[in-house]
Amino acid sequence: MTMVDLPAAVHIGAGDLPFVDIGDGSVLKVIQVKEAEGLWILENVFQAGYAVQRHKHTGPVYAYTTSGAWKYDEYSYVNRTGSFLYEPAGSIHTLRVLEDDTHVWFQMYGANLNLDANGDVESVSDGASTLGVYLALCEQAGLPRPKVIRD
Amino acid sequence: MTMVDLPAAVHIGAGDLPFVDIGDGSVLKVIQVKEAEGLWILENVFQAGYAVQRHKHTGPVYAYTTSGAWKYDEYSYVNRTGSFLYEPAGSIHTLRVLEDDTHVWFQMYGANLNLDANGDVESVSDGASTLGVYLALCEQAGLPRPKVIRD
Amino acid sequence: MTMVDLPAAVHIGAGDLPFVDIGDGSVLKVIQVKEAEGLWILENVFQAGYAVQRHKHTGPVYAYTTSGAWKYDEYSYVNRTGSFLYEPAGSIHTLRVLEDDTHVWFQMYGANLNLDANGDVESVSDGASTLGVYLALCEQAGLPRPKVIRD
Amino acid sequence: MTMVDLPAAVHIGAGDLPFVDIGDGSVLKVIQVKEAEGLWILENVFQAGYAVQRHKHTGPVYAYTTSGAWKYDEYSYVNRTGSFLYEPAGSIHTLRVLEDDTHVWFQMYGANLNLDANGDVESVSDGASTLGVYLALCEQAGLPRPKVIRD
Repeated sequence: MTMVDLPAAVHIGAGDLPFVDIGDGSVLKVIQVKEAEGLWILENVFQAGYAVQRHKHTGPVYAYTTSGAWKYDEYSYVNRTGSFLYEPAGSIHTLRVLEDDTHVWFQMYGANLNLDANGDVESVSDGASTLGVYLALCEQAGLPRPKVIRD
Repeated sequence: MTMVDLPAAVHIGAGDLPFVDIGDGSVLKVIQVKEAEGLWILENVFQAGYAVQRHKHTGPVYAYTTSGAWKYDEYSYVNRTGSFLYEPAGSIHTLRVLEDDTHVWFQMYGANLNLDANGDVESVSDGASTLGVYLALCEQAGLPRPKVIRD
Repeated sequence: MTMVDLPAAVHIGAGDLPFVDIGDGSVLKVIQVKEAEGLWILENVFQAGYAVQRHKHTGPVYAYTTSGAWKYDEYSYVNRTGSFLYEPAGSIHTLRVLEDDTHVWFQMYGANLNLDANGDVESVSDGASTLGVYLALCEQAGLPRPKVIRD
Repeated sequence: MTMVDLPAAVHIGAGDLPFVDIGDGSVLKVIQVKEAEGLWILENVFQAGYAVQRHKHTGPVYAYTTSGAWKYDEYSYVNRTGSFLYEPAGSIHTLRVLEDDTHVWFQMYGANLNLDANGDVESVSDGASTLGVYLALCEQAGLPRPKVIRD
């Protein structure tokens, strides 16, 4: 066994990628997108009142919360500092942020099918589209192109 | 190390699950659905002219063809006996069957976003919905409930 | 679309599962094990000096660090508060903790092949074996059986 | 929506990659290896009597059989034409081929831990190592470097 050609771990320090504003002071960082596999990993710091339209996941999602408070309208539990949330493929919910400076990492597979009031798909968010938004917002903010981990 | 409580492999023989008609003599079998993971494994025998609406995959798909011929309208290659096809998440295409008795296994992750002429999502197919269709068609055909591999 | 039979997200709050001592004050919590898929999710709070034998991963690993400092002997970067680490399948390294109260979530696929000085496999750690250790340590500590998320 | 930069499906026709001899007339083709994800997809045509040492899987495996007959010593069912086999991560078994011209596709995640009579790990096979063997056997046979689907 030799170290030649071994795949190496990739480290992204807290300051290595910029946050961009996604409205009312809530911010987004895209850390990794394996488009071919459908994997996308995001870091958000949300402010109270931030909401994400009711959506259905086509793959599983794993959420790690390190500060603040957020919940799904459809359920009573609240994600707080130290919470872990497992969202199986097929789960449907509406995200709402309860406190300022709510910090969450999301490890997501597949797409978010954003649903209208009838339960029909109004739009779709996935790793590729979210990466596009992130890169555009970085460019608009005059930031250098961030080195998101890619395939 | 003991054999106690070890997970066991699950075998589905060629005749263990029924095919159901999905139109004009093309047939479907649902072999495995891990809904929480977004995995669905299908077996189809298609007749010439069978088509699947243009769709986008939210996860990767792996197709194993054992007879006949089928292709995507968007590409020139033809899947024939012994063909393997890898469809990364995000790929978009329109399936068309060229020959009778075209036999394919599809190992799919995520959902099919079925697109209209404008590229908007008209409907969504996934493991759960396809399993529902399969079970209903089995029931309509007077067949016993098939033992699809589940979570 | 109805809420009937929809898969629901599963929340594990910071205090819902106990930490158990794995030596010198470092502690472990097993949050989720999907044995059939090879997925295991751990939470650790390490003390300075804690080390993990050189190992090779058979699947990808994603690590989220929320306090303290740790690194791999083979690389120079240091995981600190807010660090994300992506370890592709096939990567090999030796974990060493640099500061007390180093808090990390690990989302792991596959097994750790623990290597001796010759690079041969000395032992194997995976979700099933780590869950077994965790449940045994909980029982030894007189704790009720923890509700780890399972398949 | 535009076709620009969309990921495209990758087709491997029956004759696009060579088979190489792995002993007594049994042959191997490596179709796809996503090393970072731990995925490897093989095609084998085995002759009667071919066996694979007892091994444990660290990820799930899906096997599609199109001719012949093979089984695991530990179980009574026989994989024949049209059989599907699901092997969850953690499963352990010894493969034995019963008939000539047994054709199987294996879609594998993680590694095979090859076990000795005591259940200890004697060696490890994975996508990277199997690809290395395949490329070397192609070269020895004087074949051009095969275009295996890679990351």
